[in-house]
Amino acid sequence: MPDAIDFWFALGSPASYLASLRIEDVGARHGRAVRWRPFNIRQTLEAEGVKPNVMYPRKGAYARHDWERAARLHGHPFRMPDPFGRSTVAAMAIAYRAETVGGQPMLKAFCADVMAAYFVENAAIDDVDVLTGLAEGCGLGGDLARSAADDPEMLEMSATATRTALDEGVWGAPMTIVDGEAFWGEDRIDQLDLWLERGGW
Amino acid sequence: MPDAIDFWFALGSPASYLASLRIEDVGARHGRAVRWRPFNIRQTLEAEGVKPNVMYPRKGAYARHDWERAARLHGHPFRMPDPFGRSTVAAMAIAYRAETVGGQPMLKAFCADVMAAYFVENAAIDDVDVLTGLAEGCGLGGDLARSAADDPEMLEMSATATRTALDEGVWGAPMTIVDGEAFWGEDRIDQLDLWLERGGW
Repeated sequence: MPDAIDFWFALGSPASYLASLRIEDVGARHGRAVRWRPFNIRQTLEAEGVKPNVMYPRKGAYARHDWERAARLHGHPFRMPDPFGRSTVAAMAIAYRAETVGGQPMLKAFCADVMAAYFVENAAIDDVDVLTGLAEGCGLGGDLARSAADDPEMLEMSATATRTALDEGVWGAPMTIVDGEAFWGEDRIDQLDLWLERGGW
Repeated sequence: MPDAIDFWFALGSPASYLASLRIEDVGARHGRAVRWRPFNIRQTLEAEGVKPNVMYPRKGAYARHDWERAARLHGHPFRMPDPFGRSTVAAMAIAYRAETVGGQPMLKAFCADVMAAYFVENAAIDDVDVLTGLAEGCGLGGDLARSAADDPEMLEMSATATRTALDEGVWGAPMTIVDGEAFWGEDRIDQLDLWLERGGW
């Protein structure tokens, strides 16, 4: 079995959401498992000296347009959250508890539901009640979810993931890494697909 | 005849060079002329509050890798210039004189040669002697080329192009705009191609 694809992503990142809806198909096409690795993009952007896209006047306007256009192209529902920029610290902590309890399948289910709630339903994904409801829908007990939101161990797992992301050269999201080869952004997924098909070039 | 594609680009930008090698094919496939519009990316990045990619530690390392990989994918020669970041003020001024004298065909020929010289041969494209030689090869007289490098009228044409780029929402390069629809980066050329094929989505 070849190595898994590392899918580094941020729960509050539109491009991560859009890529998350495509990455499993890419992995499946090439017999690769995909490991979802949420990290704190605020911290990586700050470490890199970059602001979130939406904070730049032209780049931000373009990014919003690009996300909507990419979503339409692939038939994915997408609505820019308003307000945008909610904290994902609690969601990430619960995601890592989901992984501890139910492995990658439970982490993926929870993260997919959080992103769908945020980028389709405009849900308050910084609200622990909302997150707990989503976690219960994924099979994580409500108490386990709620207590994870500020559990030092889960917060430390999030912090470790974020440090590891930085160490692996990740600053923005999503960044997909396979066999040491990194592909940044939703807009390089086609190239990742081709890379796996050809075994590189 | 449908409207032309505006290809906003910067002579010192690796992604612009790579895109310039693909954009004419895209235009030709869809019966669209391509208008090459060089601008001063240093000024647009500064206006936007963004640094050149290579100045960020992780983003810069990734960008270099991505450019080399994209070049290999499309069979385009590419070598990262060293030193990188030469001024393109003189080259832009000569490019606009080339357009004044020989229209878009001469501007394109000159710009293509400047970028090939920089991104394949590592030429000193901030050297007026080098630029004059390239211009002569494109049919622009040596005196017309040399005198353009610091001609206030040509420098003003460059400045106007740069202001227009900013007004049209351009900050980085390349940015391709067709029928009011903008596509940023070498990595969105496939989507531009599809957009023209489908007439949008």
